[in-house]
Amino acid sequence: MSQNILIIGGVALGPKAAARAGRLLPDANITMIDQGTYISYGGCGIPYFVGGDVQQMNGLRTTNAGVVRDEAFFTTQKNVKTFCHTGAVSIDRRAKTVTVENTETGGQSQMPYDKLVIATGSSPRIPPLPGVDLRNVTSVTCLEAAQEIQQRCAANGIQHAVIIGAGFIGLEMAVALADMWGIKVTIIEMVDHVLPAQLCYNFAQMARHDLESLDITVLTSEAVKELKGKDGAVCQVVTDKRTIDCDQVIFSIGVTPNDKIARDAGLLCHPRGGIMVNSHMQTSDPCIYAGGDVVVMRNLVSGDFTYLPLGSMANRQGRVIGSNLAGQPDVFEGVVGAWCVKLNNMHFSGAGLTLHQARMAGFDAVEVSIEGADKAHFYPGHNNMSLNVVVDRQTRRVLGIQGCDEDGSAVKARTDVVAAMLQMGKPTLNDLANAEVCYAPPFAGAMDVLNAVANTADNVVAGRNVALTPDEFMELWNNRKENNYFFIDFRPEKAGKPIEERHPGEYLSMPLEELDERVAEVPTDRPVVLVCNTGTRSYEAQLRLRRHGIEAVNTYGGHTAFRKRGEGDAF
Amino acid sequence: MSQNILIIGGVALGPKAAARAGRLLPDANITMIDQGTYISYGGCGIPYFVGGDVQQMNGLRTTNAGVVRDEAFFTTQKNVKTFCHTGAVSIDRRAKTVTVENTETGGQSQMPYDKLVIATGSSPRIPPLPGVDLRNVTSVTCLEAAQEIQQRCAANGIQHAVIIGAGFIGLEMAVALADMWGIKVTIIEMVDHVLPAQLCYNFAQMARHDLESLDITVLTSEAVKELKGKDGAVCQVVTDKRTIDCDQVIFSIGVTPNDKIARDAGLLCHPRGGIMVNSHMQTSDPCIYAGGDVVVMRNLVSGDFTYLPLGSMANRQGRVIGSNLAGQPDVFEGVVGAWCVKLNNMHFSGAGLTLHQARMAGFDAVEVSIEGADKAHFYPGHNNMSLNVVVDRQTRRVLGIQGCDEDGSAVKARTDVVAAMLQMGKPTLNDLANAEVCYAPPFAGAMDVLNAVANTADNVVAGRNVALTPDEFMELWNNRKENNYFFIDFRPEKAGKPIEERHPGEYLSMPLEELDERVAEVPTDRPVVLVCNTGTRSYEAQLRLRRHGIEAVNTYGGHTAFRKRGEGDAF
Repeated sequence: MSQNILIIGGVALGPKAAARAGRLLPDANITMIDQGTYISYGGCGIPYFVGGDVQQMNGLRTTNAGVVRDEAFFTTQKNVKTFCHTGAVSIDRRAKTVTVENTETGGQSQMPYDKLVIATGSSPRIPPLPGVDLRNVTSVTCLEAAQEIQQRCAANGIQHAVIIGAGFIGLEMAVALADMWGIKVTIIEMVDHVLPAQLCYNFAQMARHDLESLDITVLTSEAVKELKGKDGAVCQVVTDKRTIDCDQVIFSIGVTPNDKIARDAGLLCHPRGGIMVNSHMQTSDPCIYAGGDVVVMRNLVSGDFTYLPLGSMANRQGRVIGSNLAGQPDVFEGVVGAWCVKLNNMHFSGAGLTLHQARMAGFDAVEVSIEGADKAHFYPGHNNMSLNVVVDRQTRRVLGIQGCDEDGSAVKARTDVVAAMLQMGKPTLNDLANAEVCYAPPFAGAMDVLNAVANTADNVVAGRNVALTPDEFMELWNNRKENNYFFIDFRPEKAGKPIEERHPGEYLSMPLEELDERVAEVPTDRPVVLVCNTGTRSYEAQLRLRRHGIEAVNTYGGHTAFRKRGEGDAF
Repeated sequence: MSQNILIIGGVALGPKAAARAGRLLPDANITMIDQGTYISYGGCGIPYFVGGDVQQMNGLRTTNAGVVRDEAFFTTQKNVKTFCHTGAVSIDRRAKTVTVENTETGGQSQMPYDKLVIATGSSPRIPPLPGVDLRNVTSVTCLEAAQEIQQRCAANGIQHAVIIGAGFIGLEMAVALADMWGIKVTIIEMVDHVLPAQLCYNFAQMARHDLESLDITVLTSEAVKELKGKDGAVCQVVTDKRTIDCDQVIFSIGVTPNDKIARDAGLLCHPRGGIMVNSHMQTSDPCIYAGGDVVVMRNLVSGDFTYLPLGSMANRQGRVIGSNLAGQPDVFEGVVGAWCVKLNNMHFSGAGLTLHQARMAGFDAVEVSIEGADKAHFYPGHNNMSLNVVVDRQTRRVLGIQGCDEDGSAVKARTDVVAAMLQMGKPTLNDLANAEVCYAPPFAGAMDVLNAVANTADNVVAGRNVALTPDEFMELWNNRKENNYFFIDFRPEKAGKPIEERHPGEYLSMPLEELDERVAEVPTDRPVVLVCNTGTRSYEAQLRLRRHGIEAVNTYGGHTAFRKRGEGDAF
């Protein structure tokens, strides 16, 4: 008798595992159930549907050839009997059955399995605040909610949307609403910067500035206390600092794994949520597999367990599970946490650990930032890419990278290299400094920005380059009347002189080429900060001043970073 | 007394090593000599200067801040005494001196060294053919030649240029001349396809088609026999197949390392050319370093020695040498051969070994190609990326990758990941299938095209996916009257039916969804080839037909590959 494979959940991992198993095991009896109406859809595309990039909602649930992936498609085309509106209630591991319920009729029945896949995904987190049940308060992780918002937009029904939580979906939705529909958008984030799990404060300021270029209001270090309604619909968001009138609220404060059915069945789960699986994606019951948003994975950099609910992860893990279901052993070793997001003009991406995460994981970590050309600096149309590398000071091990650029594929290229290195081993600064990446002027500089950030980090770890973050610079600059700091700008005179003229006695323009002959102008009785356009020339100045017996501190990213942070007018 | 560091060569590696050493060793006596007029220039940018992307020749020799990198710049700004028009004649390793010659006066003198760097680069190969000394016959590896060609273009002095050799510079120059100046261009390549050292025949056909879209004529498997002149200037190129009228000839058949001075000094060199160095970039004399275009490096994939003259390599190696000169040990382990090139609309890149190189290195190699979306397939503006992976059949080890896409950074991203993996270890198909790369719809598909090519290769190595290259397909298709092959197209009817109607009894349109009900239409008395838009649906068809007891062969890349090769009208 052919074996029964049952898959609970039909959005991302489920269909992938089912289709792969169906191809490898033509004779297996494969069944996939899902409690919803829509299956096998690209949930990550929801902001692009709302924002108009994807014209039809069905665009998110069709194959390349335009065929809608519904129950009939899987049943007739993929060798997978598929039932929507069918939720899993409980698992009887001894009898190897799953009790399922028709979500429309409430009728229950038993489904047998030889092998079971739990692909129940995640649910958006909704905080226990007054008013979260009001109309027009939603999250956007399912197509139904996306469609409702899109229809409200199209009917001009939203004047002011408040996004609660500055994670990926929140920021993507903010951009979609502001850019396509011209809706007033306010983002509220409890932490002091956007994308707090992905970005350092410095890069988050660049993200904030990019959002503000669409007139999006970004409120950080601010907690929502209550939603107020009128006639059952939301009309105000009350925070610990203000009250905001609005007619749409979108929660984007993360998701939690739908692991209840696994816990109830006694499968090993992580105390903070998520099913535990081995490298074959097997749960503590070897007949039961799990993957996607419902599992926690080993982080290959920190060694800790990580919750990384991403559609790409689900797809890759789904194929591994499909192979294992078919008796073709396949493994998934863990994750390094690669991510990317497009905002307005800027694209951000990263892999591995942030400085905060690295320190939490016990590393003696330092972060180093540069601004560097993403193509040859003489090639037209190049952009300044911001790159940030996180390094363990003792071992010079590379722990993480984050980047920001106008060319999304270009910044993806740099972070994907580090992701690959982290996946393959324990890369050091030497590996990154000599990372052999494709080079021709339309693609990169001869010293790739990725090599350059490693070189800068090498100089920092060695103590040669002593530099401030743009945040630290700005704090010193803004308080210069009190702290008596002196600032020297090593850019060409055209760039620095006007600032000097506005701030005599505080800010000095000294083109790098003039340093040696003008060294007497560098004060030795007050602390000195060096700055240039990107941090490169001011590093060279730092070294030269050291030869003259003068210690001064450099600034990462220089005026390019200030401009990206929207602080060009601070001077 | 401070140590004497002498650097022979001032184009790429030399200046990098000198500047790094100068920063680390403020007290060292660092001297750099170069036989030419121009130093520290971006030679890789020459085609972009000729093509107008870079407006001024000085754009290739200025810093980001617009300062020209000349003798005075290095001497006053970089702590490196620099002398142009100064060639190295010989090295006396016992006396630790270099005899140098002023190339303008012919006067010779001795320069002492404690440490010496040979950064003499390479020279373009010019074959010993009649006529190579005629006027308007050149290569384009130096700024003087570039300027001369650019001025001839600007003066409308070139009507028909012949490029001999279809390597990087040859193709970039062809595009520059045809695109910017509207010059008639003919490329002549002795091997049967362009970029023979980088591309398989299939992708090379895509490159050819892209060049032809600029009306560039590409002649392959054709050897130049003679250049003919009139009044001392070239007027004809004679090949083994034809005679071509022209008024400009550019050789681009590679470069050879300028290792004579090292050989004469008894330093270990490779029999086929190039100085041998250890991982510290030291020659067989530990006081003498070498790098850049003058050395051979260990290929980390094949284990063989490789000659890889690239500006990016020179920059990275230059920094390593600079650190070692300063007593800060640094290593450069070897190369994996990452490259990229922009043609007209298409960007090509690769890393590791081609199929041919892998087989020459003793691997039981196979290559597998796909066409896949470079962004989410529902995201507007995505392109179909062509990816080709080279795999060792026995160990499933990934040996190389090549790609082609309209988005240059996107194809760089995919090949750089493989380059990083090859640099870090011995990646397998499993590593590539689960490569964790940044994902969001504007950047990639949920199953990245890089994961997808590994998955396809997995199916090929396992014998599930048995597929033809587009070349093999075309040979069968073009000879269908003789070989009696039958072709089935699994795309939607709209795409396949018109072809069926033009070729009844030879070509059948059968949308994948109809396969099971129409299986009786599949002939069993003649060989059958399956095709779709990318190779995915036809693979699924192959599996399904197998269930029906029918073996048929699939086609990599399908009609998307045919179109990229300019063969859309073959049907």
